[in-house]
Amino acid sequence: MAKYNIAVMKGDGIGPEIVDEALKVLDAVGEKFGHEFVYNEVLIGGAAIDATGECLPRATVDACMASDSVILGAVGGPKWDSQPPANRPEKALLGIRKALGLFANLRPATLYAPLADACPLKPERIKDGLDLVVVRELTGDVYFGEKHRDEDGTGHDDMNYSVAEVERIAHRAFQMARQRRNHVTSVDKANVLETSRVWRETVERIAAEYPDVTVDYMYVDNASMQLVTNPGQFDVILTGNLFGDILSDEASCITGSIGMLPSASLGETSRGMYEPIHGSAPDIAGQNVANPIATILSVAMMLRYSFDLATEADAIETAVNSVLEAGHRTGDIAKPGEKRVTCSDMGTLIAQAI
Amino acid sequence: MAKYNIAVMKGDGIGPEIVDEALKVLDAVGEKFGHEFVYNEVLIGGAAIDATGECLPRATVDACMASDSVILGAVGGPKWDSQPPANRPEKALLGIRKALGLFANLRPATLYAPLADACPLKPERIKDGLDLVVVRELTGDVYFGEKHRDEDGTGHDDMNYSVAEVERIAHRAFQMARQRRNHVTSVDKANVLETSRVWRETVERIAAEYPDVTVDYMYVDNASMQLVTNPGQFDVILTGNLFGDILSDEASCITGSIGMLPSASLGETSRGMYEPIHGSAPDIAGQNVANPIATILSVAMMLRYSFDLATEADAIETAVNSVLEAGHRTGDIAKPGEKRVTCSDMGTLIAQAI
Ligand SMILES: CC(C)[C@H](C(=O)O)[C@@H](O)C(=O)O
Ligand SMILES: CC(C)[C@H](C(=O)O)[C@@H](O)C(=O)O
Repeated sequence: MAKYNIAVMKGDGIGPEIVDEALKVLDAVGEKFGHEFVYNEVLIGGAAIDATGECLPRATVDACMASDSVILGAVGGPKWDSQPPANRPEKALLGIRKALGLFANLRPATLYAPLADACPLKPERIKDGLDLVVVRELTGDVYFGEKHRDEDGTGHDDMNYSVAEVERIAHRAFQMARQRRNHVTSVDKANVLETSRVWRETVERIAAEYPDVTVDYMYVDNASMQLVTNPGQFDVILTGNLFGDILSDEASCITGSIGMLPSASLGETSRGMYEPIHGSAPDIAGQNVANPIATILSVAMMLRYSFDLATEADAIETAVNSVLEAGHRTGDIAKPGEKRVTCSDMGTLIAQAI
Repeated sequence: MAKYNIAVMKGDGIGPEIVDEALKVLDAVGEKFGHEFVYNEVLIGGAAIDATGECLPRATVDACMASDSVILGAVGGPKWDSQPPANRPEKALLGIRKALGLFANLRPATLYAPLADACPLKPERIKDGLDLVVVRELTGDVYFGEKHRDEDGTGHDDMNYSVAEVERIAHRAFQMARQRRNHVTSVDKANVLETSRVWRETVERIAAEYPDVTVDYMYVDNASMQLVTNPGQFDVILTGNLFGDILSDEASCITGSIGMLPSASLGETSRGMYEPIHGSAPDIAGQNVANPIATILSVAMMLRYSFDLATEADAIETAVNSVLEAGHRTGDIAKPGEKRVTCSDMGTLIAQAI
């Protein structure tokens, strides 16, 4: 029986509730397929500030480094808004990404057929469906460049990309495209930024190693338009940290079901961090009404990318689909008048469907 | 009779056709209201490269500086894609903005009732209508920061904002809000960027001078979502050059009629530059099928902001509405099967309606 050690950071707001349901589903997978998943619960974000004063305690980083993979719920909430910038829950996110070397953030945006009504776009805009993945570079760019303030109060952030940073994320995107529809759209602002020119030249060079993959280059302003007017044209969107932050959120929300969307953050090793793309939703925390599906699908990504358990990952995705097709809905994806299930019921239904 | 000297840069692609129609409408305004508009045609972009080798000849900048205001069609096209970066038509745009000190870019995104069908969003998403303006800072940010490449090939761009730069654009946004619905949403990434923290602190300080204006602060990733899910919540969006590039394009395209949307770029003086937000559309250039309305509405903005001729500006906007209501459509805004008018017919119809 294979044993997997998983560091679990439930985080703040609805984090604990949704992670509990994901672990319930994971246990069902373990039982069915004969794997042992061992959970090591550690603190991050507001919960960590409350317990230790620090948003990302050293012990948390160490536990993640010692694990085979990491599950994260969500961090942040109004309670910690008055923390100094260096100790805000978001800082913990940036810190753990950097500490674990998670340079590749994969964010699929998929329109689930039973939920097509929730899509904000008119049906004729998504005739080709919507099934794209944003591959966002996660440990570079203006996020991690040197920051300072001049004496006169001018703020500065160094935007930058090295050739090696672009190469490794480009390889990820092209490899991902090969498992999908063989199409990469690289997004930059090469008509203005030197960083983007390095980005584009490097992607062009790497693209030559993948002659079976079609590649387009698009400026970020145009990409933000194309996502609204014709999102079906995209397969893999490859982009930097800042543009990826904006475009992946735009892409998610075009599906209309942000409570459904998982994400994976990967590095050079098989250890990854898996989390829903939605936030900690403090307004509905503790009420057992949150949608755990994004977290459950994040766990499926973990099985696929960190543990190479594709059959098990498929089993989760199939279970989610069947539960949706049977008409079960949490509040965020229910139509007015439709019956709603709780967060824990949704987890149980999916675990039973495994 | 008041006389206005206008520098006219028709540019590339459909630029000349659409500008000709805008001048036709302007002449009709001059005749009706007793003003003399004098046009000084100068070269920019691809047209300037072809004639002089340079995308922004010194003579063009001088003519603009000597004018009361500037009209621009559109620049660029595949013919000039192989120009070196420093001489690309887009460079001319950045150059003329900087030379004329046009730090405030105003981009209204309005849904025209007769064209509501073209909106990519479902009707229930725009129940409150859609009438926002993006106030984008235009001469600072990572666009104009120092750029270089290290010996190892790493690309760098310095993102920065000084307090004074933020102050002057913030004042513009708050003044604009006072003429509208008294609501400013300032967009930044203050949870990550020092530049954004300077931005936010400065906007907070300026906001105190406008107690009658409500102000919200939003992260750029969230703003890109809110524009899709609930665009009716916005009145004035105040943001920097890079985020403004992305969000204003996203906002435009949510109206579904990018061929309708004008823009104004303003500085400290009354001299402004007015241009449609759409591009040069080389694929339909010279066919007399382009939509001149965005350029015509840009000229209305010129009358309002540079010449303080609000009645005359209203007259153009009313004429555009009446022609649309009468059912006249260029190809880009026509429904399948609907009769289409040419670019020059549309200009004539609007001029006649003045
Ligand atoms: C909270 C913030 C720092 C973070 C980011 O910008 O990366 C978030 O928006 C995300 O996308 O995970
Ligand atoms: C062409 C490009 C340099 C320009 C910009 O990014 O400012 C354009 O996208 C715009 O918005 O006017």
